[in-house]
Amino acid sequence: MMEEVLAPLREAVRQQGEVVRQMKEQGAAEQAVNQAVAELRAHKRTLEAKELSLQPKDDVVDRAKMEDTLKRRFFYDQAFAIYGGVSGLYDFGPVGCALKNNILQVWRQHFIQEEQILEIDCTMLTPEPVLKTSGHVDKFADYMVKDAKTGECFRADHLLKAHLKKLMLAEKCSAETSEEMEDVITQMDNYSQQDLAALFGKYNVRSPSTGNDLTAPTSFNLMFKTSIGPAGNMPGYLRPETAQGMFLNFKRLLEFNQGKLPFGAAQIGNSFRNEISPRSGLIRVREFTMAEIEHFVDPMEKVHPKFSNVADLNITLYSSKAQTSGQSAHIMRLGDAVEQGVINNSVLGYFIGRIHLYLTKVGLSKDKLRFRQHMDNEMAHYACDCWDAETKTSYGWIEIVGCADRSCYDLTCHSRATKVPLVAEKILKEPKTVSVVQFEPNKGAIGMAYKRDARSILDYLAACDEGYITAQESTLDTSGEFTIQTEGKSFKITKDMVSVKRFQKTSHVEEIVPNVIEPSFGIGRIMYAIFEHSFRTREGDEQRTFFSFPAAVAPYKCSVLPLSQNQEFVPFVKELSEAMTEQGVSHKVDDSSGSIGRRYARTDEIGVAFGITVDFDTVNKTPHTATLRDRDSMTQIRAQVTELPGLVRDLANGRLTWAKVERKYPVFGGQETIKKE
Amino acid sequence: MMEEVLAPLREAVRQQGEVVRQMKEQGAAEQAVNQAVAELRAHKRTLEAKELSLQPKDDVVDRAKMEDTLKRRFFYDQAFAIYGGVSGLYDFGPVGCALKNNILQVWRQHFIQEEQILEIDCTMLTPEPVLKTSGHVDKFADYMVKDAKTGECFRADHLLKAHLKKLMLAEKCSAETSEEMEDVITQMDNYSQQDLAALFGKYNVRSPSTGNDLTAPTSFNLMFKTSIGPAGNMPGYLRPETAQGMFLNFKRLLEFNQGKLPFGAAQIGNSFRNEISPRSGLIRVREFTMAEIEHFVDPMEKVHPKFSNVADLNITLYSSKAQTSGQSAHIMRLGDAVEQGVINNSVLGYFIGRIHLYLTKVGLSKDKLRFRQHMDNEMAHYACDCWDAETKTSYGWIEIVGCADRSCYDLTCHSRATKVPLVAEKILKEPKTVSVVQFEPNKGAIGMAYKRDARSILDYLAACDEGYITAQESTLDTSGEFTIQTEGKSFKITKDMVSVKRFQKTSHVEEIVPNVIEPSFGIGRIMYAIFEHSFRTREGDEQRTFFSFPAAVAPYKCSVLPLSQNQEFVPFVKELSEAMTEQGVSHKVDDSSGSIGRRYARTDEIGVAFGITVDFDTVNKTPHTATLRDRDSMTQIRAQVTELPGLVRDLANGRLTWAKVERKYPVFGGQETIKKE
Repeated sequence: MMEEVLAPLREAVRQQGEVVRQMKEQGAAEQAVNQAVAELRAHKRTLEAKELSLQPKDDVVDRAKMEDTLKRRFFYDQAFAIYGGVSGLYDFGPVGCALKNNILQVWRQHFIQEEQILEIDCTMLTPEPVLKTSGHVDKFADYMVKDAKTGECFRADHLLKAHLKKLMLAEKCSAETSEEMEDVITQMDNYSQQDLAALFGKYNVRSPSTGNDLTAPTSFNLMFKTSIGPAGNMPGYLRPETAQGMFLNFKRLLEFNQGKLPFGAAQIGNSFRNEISPRSGLIRVREFTMAEIEHFVDPMEKVHPKFSNVADLNITLYSSKAQTSGQSAHIMRLGDAVEQGVINNSVLGYFIGRIHLYLTKVGLSKDKLRFRQHMDNEMAHYACDCWDAETKTSYGWIEIVGCADRSCYDLTCHSRATKVPLVAEKILKEPKTVSVVQFEPNKGAIGMAYKRDARSILDYLAACDEGYITAQESTLDTSGEFTIQTEGKSFKITKDMVSVKRFQKTSHVEEIVPNVIEPSFGIGRIMYAIFEHSFRTREGDEQRTFFSFPAAVAPYKCSVLPLSQNQEFVPFVKELSEAMTEQGVSHKVDDSSGSIGRRYARTDEIGVAFGITVDFDTVNKTPHTATLRDRDSMTQIRAQVTELPGLVRDLANGRLTWAKVERKYPVFGGQETIKKE
Repeated sequence: MMEEVLAPLREAVRQQGEVVRQMKEQGAAEQAVNQAVAELRAHKRTLEAKELSLQPKDDVVDRAKMEDTLKRRFFYDQAFAIYGGVSGLYDFGPVGCALKNNILQVWRQHFIQEEQILEIDCTMLTPEPVLKTSGHVDKFADYMVKDAKTGECFRADHLLKAHLKKLMLAEKCSAETSEEMEDVITQMDNYSQQDLAALFGKYNVRSPSTGNDLTAPTSFNLMFKTSIGPAGNMPGYLRPETAQGMFLNFKRLLEFNQGKLPFGAAQIGNSFRNEISPRSGLIRVREFTMAEIEHFVDPMEKVHPKFSNVADLNITLYSSKAQTSGQSAHIMRLGDAVEQGVINNSVLGYFIGRIHLYLTKVGLSKDKLRFRQHMDNEMAHYACDCWDAETKTSYGWIEIVGCADRSCYDLTCHSRATKVPLVAEKILKEPKTVSVVQFEPNKGAIGMAYKRDARSILDYLAACDEGYITAQESTLDTSGEFTIQTEGKSFKITKDMVSVKRFQKTSHVEEIVPNVIEPSFGIGRIMYAIFEHSFRTREGDEQRTFFSFPAAVAPYKCSVLPLSQNQEFVPFVKELSEAMTEQGVSHKVDDSSGSIGRRYARTDEIGVAFGITVDFDTVNKTPHTATLRDRDSMTQIRAQVTELPGLVRDLANGRLTWAKVERKYPVFGGQETIKKE
């Protein structure tokens, strides 16, 4: 039934996919290909929207109700609210912060510890040259238009799209015009600044808030700019990603790893993105926490020794091929996906498996998780394969983790910009003879001419590669000199200062530029998806909602509730609380006056995993016992007060399941004694 | 002997302290008092420098040697080094990052968990109005001068001081001139911009690098400025401290705590300070991690219920009185200090005790730790008592934790600026009758006059306090109108729009503005002090250095070393590593080819707490055993492979001591079997 509706949409994707393939084969012009790809994407979007709209109703979270809970219980809320708030900035309250810390703690355990990854911690302030090299200064931008009178800013593509959609709804809009507009929307991602300016003119787009004229589209860089130091001559930015820190420290990390490949480096920290008009809550914010891994590997040995540990996982993959032929994502054994070349190599495959395990461990539903491969035209030109972990939310499928094979791109760029070789040495099985080309400087002449700068000139000349040397050699031949830039100054190098030396050398090692596999996690987005996938309503009581967070990430592992405010309960509450603190079990004592049911509901609402209640049986009977309640099933058992903290600890770290606890301890029905008179 | 040398210096402090006291009593002019206080400080500095210089030589760390290790093993290093580096910015490598994470983890356990504090996580980007209210926009600044030609920047006070010290050393400098200059140095902190300009002229200070003229001193704000959003109309800064987040979220936190006082809130995160010319490694940097607690308390009930837990601690206190009378810091029972009023109240006293316990737990030497009370003239005008935890390093005594009673200052300021009442409700023991004064608005007239703005005007009028209302009432009487500012606009309020209503009300609750006790930790400085206090050299071998970090914070808890590269060891290494991962014990496998002694030395150098070695007895004998070595004593025991991971876990979390392990297991002398042929 559902497939019947989808069939024609799948066919449209397949046909357009075929068109693109043929155009590429026939070497069609780039613009034409881009247009065909854009149409392909539009068909994909239509298919996906339809698929989503057909999903069972009870699978969709009541977002308004959930967000009310998140705000009311201060999981997170708008930052600087008493000053009017700033869009795209959020503060995490006690339970949100605890949840986030636990998500990161599990991440550290799952990746840093289990994979013996080298974690580093770099500054967020970043001087401009670094981000010039990485391409962010030139390319990390969106087009923007402003209201000519009020100065209000809009993202050009979003505004144009909204404007056209409105025009298309008008009665007088002909089918022909409508099709033309649909076409513009389809190609939105391909437009240049000039194209956009022309379109804004053609469709007479005006400010949606005031009807005023708009300024021409300009490129707006999304990095937050600042100035480092007092002199005003060192522009800097807040980093837009944490990855650069690993590339810049590559040499130190390689040395720390005793010169050996492969190794992984990782960083957890905040990054910044000055969105033009942020919306969608935690999904699109201006300051956010990321966790990124850069796994450096010999390009000739892209094989992961532990791949067999994950090869049997069945994972939902949405390959590039499936996407361009109108198929759905489908479940595949990871080992088969690598063997069949669906996933480029087993290192990438290994991380896809580990990411899958991590995401389900912290609370994402397996059936709302897929890995989508980038299509050729989506992929950065340097990447050789790229898969996004996507999760289904009320906003549709959203990207939460990227996993890209970035080849040697980043290290090569920084190496070129700094003249510092970012390479590893690999011992050759057999020594080989290599040709060496190098500058042979005349130290005396250079010293005479440049005095204190001579040292840096010599360093520069020593670091040049063959291509550069050969090029300068010919300049030297024709004009008798060439110019180098180093440490911000220019120097003329003349014939008497340098010659070029060529010779053969027997080498036992070779220098290689490592490739890098980069799993990159958006922690805020993962957290938001956990909220949606964990939000539940108690059967028969629409007002009682709870979050079924896995115990590993639950903000508190356990609550401790005295049955009432009777003073006899106090010493037991204290004993339990102190023992749990000693065991490192986070917990919350609620000795307020509400009924026990009301207090359970309050702790359920913030996703506390377990609850201990001290009642009159605790006080009156020996050995002293108390009840332990499981949040999801609401069943309770009775165990000794001295045992309970250890039980909760083991339940929280996964060494024990609730099913086992239920089998071992008597299920609790109701207390047998009451307050003694 | 030492006291003999110090006696005259102590006496000089005492006498000057007496002078200050008398001047204050007699109500001397402020400038005269300031000058006398500055002289008092100069005497204190001299005394302290002499005390430090007399300390035993073997107590001083070999800083160059230690820093070599820190750099070589990549604990931390200059950020962006391959781009030339940026002063005041450092990256933490794998061991530095692990150490830092552990320091924070222990902090969370010690404060957040044990004190049930509410941790929050706020944005670093902060809009200008917030920091205008907090005083940072106007006052968070240093004076700076620039080289008129090269633009090089210098901190004015540092430069002037260095210049005068040089002049004083010149032969031709008369005793009289020298004394005058000493006087200038003494009063450095009191100078205004004009004073400094005059002194730079008088002493003809020039650029120390070029001899060029200097520009006049200007005030340089130490916050990093940026712009939030694309419009360019929302100036923002990177936060200079994490505290503001707790104040701005006070209402949400109070509600989370079900409206009850006292409660603590905390935040761990990065702050920023654009130093003019940063020096001293990790001590003075431009980006740093802080951990701050704001403990909100009823000002009438500044008594901590758990104070008795810390009352018996003996802590080195350096009270204001001791400082102004030339005495040394001295050890005091915390309970006595609070009882005798040396420490203002038991809440402050409780936190001083807890800070002391934390700092010694993470590895600071008790005998290099003191709490120094701010003297009246040092203390911010709003604080009622303030103690800094200071630690002795090769840089002298440095502040690592501040602990201030900030009274109701911060909440009051933000409340005034935003018109949002930041108060708690306190239930009265007996209801009381109170006089109420409030504006009675004429909604019709205001609505007519201000249309869409009427709502915010009514909100504003409803939030005004008695003093303001009475003042406006008299303006209204005399001129028939008054003006209010809200949401960035001005509005005239005329007689027909508002009247003032006065009445009596019986109230069961009263509103109070909580006071706040603020312990504020500089994590980078604490970490640096741990390095200095833990750096050791093996007796008899100057080249073998190690860090004796407590296991709780050691970057890795344990190393796993196969005796050689023999393949028979591999399965045991794997078993141990997997078991430790499962137990959450961070560890490092070193199966490289160096001798076992050399590999131990390498792990000692980065402070790994314990080491397990797999040898031929492990392989050849059953049950399989391996050796466990304690880093500090270098003694070894033998235990079963299956037991070792649990042993290390318990040693690391403090449930077990090495002494106990030594008593229970056989001490290891050497292996009894060798490789089987």
